[in-house]
Amino acid sequence: MTIQRADAQRNYARILAVAEEEVAAHGADASLEQIARIAGVGSATVRRHFPSRRVLLAAVFSERIETLCARATDLANASDPRLALLDWLSALTAYATSARGMADALLQDGLDDTDHVNACSAKLSDAVDPLVHRAIQSGAVAPDVTTTDLITLVTGIALATEHHSDPAAEAKRLLALTVRGVSPQR
Amino acid sequence: MTIQRADAQRNYARILAVAEEEVAAHGADASLEQIARIAGVGSATVRRHFPSRRVLLAAVFSERIETLCARATDLANASDPRLALLDWLSALTAYATSARGMADALLQDGLDDTDHVNACSAKLSDAVDPLVHRAIQSGAVAPDVTTTDLITLVTGIALATEHHSDPAAEAKRLLALTVRGVSPQR
Repeated sequence: MTIQRADAQRNYARILAVAEEEVAAHGADASLEQIARIAGVGSATVRRHFPSRRVLLAAVFSERIETLCARATDLANASDPRLALLDWLSALTAYATSARGMADALLQDGLDDTDHVNACSAKLSDAVDPLVHRAIQSGAVAPDVTTTDLITLVTGIALATEHHSDPAAEAKRLLALTVRGVSPQR
Repeated sequence: MTIQRADAQRNYARILAVAEEEVAAHGADASLEQIARIAGVGSATVRRHFPSRRVLLAAVFSERIETLCARATDLANASDPRLALLDWLSALTAYATSARGMADALLQDGLDDTDHVNACSAKLSDAVDPLVHRAIQSGAVAPDVTTTDLITLVTGIALATEHHSDPAAEAKRLLALTVRGVSPQR
Protein backbone atom coordinates (compact mmCIF):
# COMPACT_ATOMS: atom_id res chain seq x y z
CA MET A 1 0.00 0.00 0.00
CA THR A 2 2.78 2.43 0.92
CA ILE A 3 4.55 1.77 -2.36
CA GLN A 4 1.28 2.23 -4.25
CA ARG A 5 0.62 5.51 -2.45
CA ALA A 6 4.15 6.75 -3.17
CA ASP A 7 3.62 5.79 -6.82
CA ALA A 8 0.37 7.73 -6.91
CA GLN A 9 2.07 10.79 -5.42
CA ARG A 10 4.88 10.57 -7.94
CA ASN A 11 2.33 10.27 -10.76
CA TYR A 12 0.40 13.26 -9.45
CA ALA A 13 3.55 15.38 -9.24
CA ARG A 14 4.71 14.25 -12.69
CA ILE A 15 1.33 14.90 -14.33
CA LEU A 16 1.12 18.33 -12.68
CA ALA A 17 4.63 19.27 -13.82
CA VAL A 18 3.87 18.19 -17.40
CA ALA A 19 0.49 19.98 -17.26
CA GLU A 20 2.24 23.22 -16.20
CA GLU A 21 4.54 23.04 -19.22
CA GLU A 22 1.75 22.14 -21.62
CA VAL A 23 -0.50 24.93 -20.31
CA ALA A 24 2.40 27.40 -20.60
CA ALA A 25 2.97 26.26 -24.20
CA HIS A 26 -0.62 25.83 -25.40
CA GLY A 27 -2.78 27.73 -22.91
CA ALA A 28 -5.94 26.36 -21.39
CA ASP A 29 -6.56 24.20 -24.47
CA ALA A 30 -3.63 21.91 -23.61
CA SER A 31 -4.57 18.34 -24.45
CA LEU A 32 -5.13 15.92 -21.55
CA GLU A 33 -4.12 13.03 -23.84
CA GLN A 34 -0.86 14.77 -24.73
CA ILE A 35 -0.20 15.41 -21.01
CA ALA A 36 -0.76 11.70 -20.27
CA ARG A 37 1.60 10.71 -23.11
CA ILE A 38 4.44 13.01 -22.01
CA ALA A 39 4.00 12.02 -18.35
CA GLY A 40 4.20 8.35 -19.40
CA VAL A 41 0.88 7.40 -17.80
CA GLY A 42 -2.49 6.36 -19.15
CA SER A 43 -5.36 8.77 -19.75
CA ALA A 44 -7.26 6.96 -17.00
CA THR A 45 -4.51 7.83 -14.51
CA VAL A 46 -4.68 11.49 -15.50
CA ARG A 47 -8.45 11.44 -15.09
CA ARG A 48 -8.23 9.71 -11.70
CA HIS A 49 -6.08 12.57 -10.35
CA PHE A 50 -7.80 15.33 -12.34
CA PRO A 51 -11.41 14.37 -13.13
CA SER A 52 -11.93 17.43 -15.35
CA ARG A 53 -9.91 20.01 -17.26
CA ARG A 54 -11.12 22.57 -14.72
CA VAL A 55 -9.65 20.62 -11.79
CA LEU A 56 -6.36 20.28 -13.67
CA LEU A 57 -6.22 24.00 -14.54
CA ALA A 58 -7.05 24.97 -10.94
CA ALA A 59 -4.22 22.72 -9.72
CA VAL A 60 -1.77 24.26 -12.22
CA PHE A 61 -2.94 27.75 -11.21
CA SER A 62 -2.48 27.02 -7.48
CA GLU A 63 0.90 25.40 -8.09
CA ARG A 64 2.19 28.43 -9.98
CA ILE A 65 0.91 30.83 -7.32
CA GLU A 66 2.71 28.66 -4.72
CA THR A 67 5.88 28.88 -6.80
CA LEU A 68 5.60 32.68 -7.01
CA CYS A 69 5.00 32.89 -3.24
CA ALA A 70 8.01 30.63 -2.57
CA ARG A 71 10.12 32.81 -4.90
CA ALA A 72 9.07 35.91 -2.90
CA THR A 73 10.03 34.17 0.36
CA ASP A 74 13.42 33.17 -1.10
CA LEU A 75 14.06 36.77 -2.15
CA ALA A 76 12.90 38.35 1.12
CA ASN A 77 16.43 38.49 2.55
CA ALA A 78 18.40 39.07 -0.64
CA SER A 79 21.22 41.60 -0.21
CA ASP A 80 19.81 44.04 -2.78
CA PRO A 81 16.12 44.87 -2.06
CA ARG A 82 15.69 46.58 -5.44
CA LEU A 83 17.02 43.66 -7.48
CA ALA A 84 15.01 41.26 -5.33
CA LEU A 85 11.78 43.07 -6.17
CA LEU A 86 12.66 43.38 -9.89
CA ASP A 87 13.55 39.69 -9.98
CA TRP A 88 10.15 38.82 -8.54
CA LEU A 89 8.32 41.19 -10.92
CA SER A 90 10.05 39.44 -13.85
CA ALA A 91 8.83 36.08 -12.54
CA LEU A 92 5.30 37.47 -12.14
CA THR A 93 5.38 38.88 -15.69
CA ALA A 94 6.51 35.53 -17.14
CA TYR A 95 3.72 33.84 -15.20
CA ALA A 96 1.02 36.39 -16.12
CA THR A 97 1.96 36.17 -19.80
CA SER A 98 1.74 32.39 -19.88
CA ALA A 99 -1.18 32.00 -17.46
CA ARG A 100 -3.60 34.41 -19.07
CA GLY A 101 -5.71 31.94 -21.02
CA MET A 102 -5.74 29.68 -17.98
CA ALA A 103 -7.24 32.22 -15.58
CA ASP A 104 -9.82 33.09 -18.24
CA ALA A 105 -10.72 29.42 -18.64
CA LEU A 106 -11.15 29.05 -14.88
CA LEU A 107 -13.40 32.11 -14.76
CA GLN A 108 -15.47 31.27 -17.81
CA ASP A 109 -16.20 27.58 -17.41
CA GLY A 110 -19.57 28.19 -15.77
CA LEU A 111 -18.32 27.25 -12.32
CA ASP A 112 -17.51 30.54 -10.66
CA ASP A 113 -13.96 30.23 -9.38
CA THR A 114 -13.59 33.92 -8.59
CA ASP A 115 -13.28 33.17 -4.86
CA HIS A 116 -10.43 30.78 -5.56
CA VAL A 117 -8.69 33.33 -7.81
CA ASN A 118 -9.19 36.08 -5.20
CA ALA A 119 -7.82 33.87 -2.42
CA CYS A 120 -4.74 33.21 -4.55
CA SER A 121 -4.32 36.96 -5.21
CA ALA A 122 -4.48 37.72 -1.48
CA LYS A 123 -1.89 35.01 -0.77
CA LEU A 124 0.38 36.44 -3.45
CA SER A 125 0.06 39.97 -2.05
CA ASP A 126 0.93 38.77 1.45
CA ALA A 127 4.01 36.98 0.16
CA VAL A 128 5.38 39.91 -1.83
CA ASP A 129 4.50 42.74 0.59
CA PRO A 130 7.82 42.33 2.47
CA LEU A 131 9.76 42.69 -0.83
CA VAL A 132 7.94 45.93 -1.67
CA HIS A 133 8.38 47.18 1.89
CA ARG A 134 12.15 46.56 1.83
CA ALA A 135 12.47 48.20 -1.62
CA ILE A 136 10.66 51.26 -0.27
CA GLN A 137 12.81 51.36 2.88
CA SER A 138 15.96 51.21 0.76
CA GLY A 139 14.73 54.19 -1.28
CA ALA A 140 14.51 52.22 -4.53
CA VAL A 141 10.72 52.54 -4.74
CA ALA A 142 8.58 55.56 -3.77
CA PRO A 143 6.66 55.20 -0.46
CA ASP A 144 3.22 55.50 -2.09
CA VAL A 145 3.70 52.46 -4.34
CA THR A 146 1.72 49.40 -3.25
CA THR A 147 1.98 45.69 -4.01
CA THR A 148 -1.43 45.96 -5.68
CA ASP A 149 -0.13 48.73 -7.98
CA LEU A 150 2.70 46.49 -9.15
CA ILE A 151 0.50 43.41 -9.66
CA THR A 152 -2.05 45.56 -11.54
CA LEU A 153 0.63 47.03 -13.83
CA VAL A 154 2.03 43.58 -14.63
CA THR A 155 -1.48 42.19 -15.23
CA GLY A 156 -2.17 45.09 -17.60
CA ILE A 157 1.05 44.45 -19.51
CA ALA A 158 0.12 40.77 -19.85
CA LEU A 159 -3.40 41.62 -21.05
CA ALA A 160 -2.23 44.26 -23.54
CA THR A 161 0.47 42.02 -25.09
CA GLU A 162 -1.73 38.92 -25.31
CA HIS A 163 -2.16 39.13 -29.10
CA HIS A 164 1.45 40.14 -29.78
CA SER A 165 3.52 37.73 -31.91
CA ASP A 166 5.87 37.14 -28.94
CA PRO A 167 3.91 38.08 -25.79
CA ALA A 168 6.61 37.00 -23.30
CA ALA A 169 9.36 39.09 -24.95
CA GLU A 170 7.10 42.12 -25.45
CA ALA A 171 5.82 41.95 -21.85
CA LYS A 172 9.42 41.75 -20.56
CA ARG A 173 10.35 44.83 -22.63
CA LEU A 174 7.35 46.82 -21.36
CA LEU A 175 8.04 45.79 -17.75
CA ALA A 176 11.59 47.15 -18.11
CA LEU A 177 10.15 50.40 -19.49
CA THR A 178 7.67 50.61 -16.57
CA VAL A 179 10.46 50.03 -14.06
CA ARG A 180 12.81 52.66 -15.48
CA GLY A 181 9.92 55.02 -16.32
CA VAL A 182 8.64 56.40 -19.61
CA SER A 183 9.97 59.83 -18.65
CA PRO A 184 11.37 59.79 -15.10
CA GLN A 185 13.22 63.14 -15.07
CA ARG A 186 12.15 66.30 -13.13
CA MET B 1 -34.14 72.31 -47.92
CA THR B 2 -31.02 74.12 -46.77
CA ILE B 3 -32.62 74.89 -43.41
CA GLN B 4 -33.74 71.27 -43.09
CA ARG B 5 -30.25 70.02 -43.93
CA ALA B 6 -28.70 72.41 -41.39
CA ASP B 7 -31.22 71.17 -38.82
CA ALA B 8 -30.30 67.56 -39.61
CA GLN B 9 -26.59 68.34 -39.21
CA ARG B 10 -27.21 70.06 -35.88
CA ASN B 11 -29.29 67.09 -34.73
CA TYR B 12 -26.57 64.65 -35.78
CA ALA B 13 -23.89 66.63 -33.94
CA ARG B 14 -26.08 67.00 -30.83
CA ILE B 15 -26.99 63.30 -30.75
CA LEU B 16 -23.34 62.30 -31.21
CA ALA B 17 -22.21 64.65 -28.42
CA VAL B 18 -24.86 63.26 -26.05
CA ALA B 19 -24.01 59.69 -27.13
CA GLU B 20 -20.34 60.29 -26.29
CA GLU B 21 -21.25 61.41 -22.76
CA GLU B 22 -23.72 58.57 -22.23
CA VAL B 23 -21.25 55.96 -23.49
CA ALA B 24 -18.55 57.43 -21.24
CA ALA B 25 -20.96 57.24 -18.28
CA HIS B 26 -22.68 53.91 -18.98
CA GLY B 27 -20.42 52.10 -21.45
CA ALA B 28 -21.70 50.36 -24.54
CA ASP B 29 -25.05 49.67 -22.85
CA ALA B 30 -26.00 53.38 -22.97
CA SER B 31 -29.72 53.68 -23.74
CA LEU B 32 -30.69 55.03 -27.18
CA GLU B 33 -33.97 56.31 -25.67
CA GLN B 34 -32.08 58.18 -22.96
CA ILE B 35 -29.78 59.68 -25.62
CA ALA B 36 -32.82 60.86 -27.62
CA ARG B 37 -34.36 62.39 -24.47
CA ILE B 38 -31.22 64.32 -23.45
CA ALA B 39 -30.61 65.47 -27.03
CA GLY B 40 -34.22 66.73 -27.17
CA VAL B 41 -35.13 64.71 -30.27
CA GLY B 42 -37.43 61.75 -30.93
CA SER B 43 -36.23 58.14 -30.94
CA ALA B 44 -37.07 58.05 -34.66
CA THR B 45 -34.60 60.88 -35.30
CA VAL B 46 -31.86 59.02 -33.42
CA ARG B 47 -32.61 55.90 -35.46
CA ARG B 48 -32.60 57.82 -38.76
CA HIS B 49 -29.03 59.00 -38.07
CA PHE B 50 -27.88 55.83 -36.32
CA PRO B 51 -29.89 52.80 -37.54
CA SER B 52 -28.29 50.47 -34.96
CA ARG B 53 -26.40 50.65 -31.69
CA ARG B 54 -23.36 49.40 -33.57
CA VAL B 55 -23.46 52.35 -36.00
CA LEU B 56 -23.81 54.75 -33.07
CA LEU B 57 -20.90 53.18 -31.15
CA ALA B 58 -18.70 53.20 -34.27
CA ALA B 59 -19.48 56.92 -34.75
CA VAL B 60 -18.66 57.67 -31.09
CA PHE B 61 -15.43 55.63 -31.40
CA SER B 62 -14.36 57.47 -34.59
CA GLU B 63 -15.27 60.84 -33.08
CA ARG B 64 -13.12 60.21 -30.01
CA ILE B 65 -10.18 59.00 -32.10
CA GLU B 66 -10.53 62.20 -34.18
CA THR B 67 -10.52 64.23 -30.95
CA LEU B 68 -7.35 62.45 -29.75
CA CYS B 69 -5.67 63.01 -33.13
CA ALA B 70 -6.64 66.71 -33.07
CA ARG B 71 -5.26 66.97 -29.52
CA ALA B 72 -1.95 65.49 -30.71
CA THR B 73 -1.82 67.99 -33.59
CA ASP B 74 -2.54 70.87 -31.18
CA LEU B 75 0.29 69.71 -28.90
CA ALA B 76 2.82 69.11 -31.71
CA ASN B 77 4.38 72.55 -31.34
CA ALA B 78 3.97 73.07 -27.60
CA SER B 79 7.00 74.66 -25.96
CA ASP B 80 7.69 71.70 -23.64
CA PRO B 81 7.86 68.40 -25.60
CA ARG B 82 7.78 66.32 -22.41
CA LEU B 83 4.66 67.98 -21.00
CA ALA B 84 3.04 67.84 -24.45
CA LEU B 85 3.50 64.05 -24.58
CA LEU B 86 2.36 63.56 -20.96
CA ASP B 87 -0.68 65.74 -21.61
CA TRP B 88 -1.60 63.55 -24.59
CA LEU B 89 -1.00 60.31 -22.64
CA SER B 90 -3.40 61.59 -19.95
CA ALA B 91 -6.04 62.23 -22.62
CA LEU B 92 -5.48 58.75 -24.07
CA THR B 93 -5.78 57.17 -20.61
CA ALA B 94 -9.04 59.00 -19.91
CA TYR B 95 -10.33 57.81 -23.29
CA ALA B 96 -9.13 54.20 -22.91
CA THR B 97 -10.71 53.97 -19.45
CA SER B 98 -14.09 55.21 -20.62
CA ALA B 99 -14.05 53.58 -24.06
CA ARG B 100 -13.19 50.06 -23.00
CA GLY B 101 -16.67 48.55 -23.07
CA MET B 102 -17.27 50.34 -26.33
CA ALA B 103 -14.36 48.81 -28.21
CA ASP B 104 -15.35 45.40 -26.84
CA ALA B 105 -18.92 45.91 -28.04
CA LEU B 106 -17.68 46.85 -31.51
CA LEU B 107 -15.48 43.77 -31.65
CA GLN B 108 -18.02 41.35 -30.25
CA ASP B 109 -21.21 42.28 -32.08
CA GLY B 110 -20.80 39.59 -34.71
CA LEU B 111 -19.84 42.07 -37.40
CA ASP B 112 -16.06 42.04 -37.43
CA ASP B 113 -15.01 45.64 -37.03
CA THR B 114 -11.37 44.80 -36.42
CA ASP B 115 -10.37 46.52 -39.67
CA HIS B 116 -12.11 49.70 -38.55
CA VAL B 117 -10.44 49.53 -35.13
CA ASN B 118 -7.04 48.84 -36.71
CA ALA B 119 -7.44 51.76 -39.14
CA CYS B 120 -8.22 54.02 -36.17
CA SER B 121 -5.15 52.73 -34.29
CA ALA B 122 -2.90 53.45 -37.29
CA LYS B 123 -4.35 56.96 -37.59
CA LEU B 124 -3.74 57.54 -33.88
CA SER B 125 -0.12 56.34 -34.14
CA ASP B 126 0.55 58.65 -37.10
CA ALA B 127 -0.87 61.62 -35.19
CA VAL B 128 1.15 61.04 -32.01
CA ASP B 129 4.45 59.93 -33.58
CA PRO B 130 5.69 63.56 -33.83
CA LEU B 131 5.02 64.09 -30.09
CA VAL B 132 7.05 60.99 -29.18
CA HIS B 133 9.80 61.99 -31.62
CA ARG B 134 10.10 65.48 -30.10
CA ALA B 135 10.09 64.08 -26.55
CA ILE B 136 12.94 61.73 -27.53
CA GLN B 137 14.89 64.54 -29.23
CA SER B 138 14.57 66.67 -26.11
CA GLY B 139 15.99 63.82 -24.01
CA ALA B 140 12.80 63.39 -21.96
CA VAL B 141 12.13 59.90 -23.34
CA ALA B 142 14.67 57.17 -24.18
CA PRO B 143 15.36 56.68 -27.92
CA ASP B 144 14.11 53.06 -27.95
CA VAL B 145 10.58 53.96 -26.77
CA THR B 146 7.94 53.75 -29.50
CA THR B 147 4.44 55.18 -29.87
CA THR B 148 3.15 51.60 -29.87
CA ASP B 149 4.87 50.94 -26.51
CA LEU B 150 3.07 53.90 -24.98
CA ILE B 151 -0.34 53.03 -26.44
CA THR B 152 0.11 49.41 -25.31
CA LEU B 153 1.03 50.47 -21.75
CA VAL B 154 -2.02 52.77 -21.53
CA THR B 155 -4.29 50.07 -22.97
CA GLY B 156 -2.96 47.61 -20.38
CA ILE B 157 -3.61 50.07 -17.55
CA ALA B 158 -7.17 50.58 -18.82
CA LEU B 159 -7.77 46.82 -19.06
CA ALA B 160 -6.30 46.06 -15.64
CA THR B 161 -8.28 48.79 -13.84
CA GLU B 162 -11.59 48.01 -15.55
CA HIS B 163 -13.16 46.40 -12.47
CA HIS B 164 -11.74 48.94 -9.99
CA SER B 165 -14.27 51.02 -8.03
CA ASP B 166 -12.95 54.20 -9.72
CA PRO B 167 -11.21 53.09 -12.95
CA ALA B 168 -10.44 56.63 -14.21
CA ALA B 169 -8.71 57.72 -10.98
CA GLU B 170 -6.82 54.43 -10.62
CA ALA B 171 -5.68 54.49 -14.27
CA LYS B 172 -4.47 58.09 -13.86
CA ARG B 173 -2.49 57.07 -10.77
CA LEU B 174 -0.90 54.07 -12.53
CA LEU B 175 -0.05 56.20 -15.60
CA ALA B 176 1.80 58.65 -13.32
CA LEU B 177 3.69 55.70 -11.78
CA THR B 178 4.57 54.36 -15.26
CA VAL B 179 5.81 57.80 -16.36
CA ARG B 180 8.03 58.36 -13.33
CA GLY B 181 9.03 54.68 -13.15
CA VAL B 182 8.50 52.02 -10.49
CA SER B 183 12.21 52.15 -9.66
CA PRO B 184 14.05 54.46 -12.08
CA GLN B 185 17.40 54.76 -10.26
CA ARG B 186 20.74 53.19 -11.39
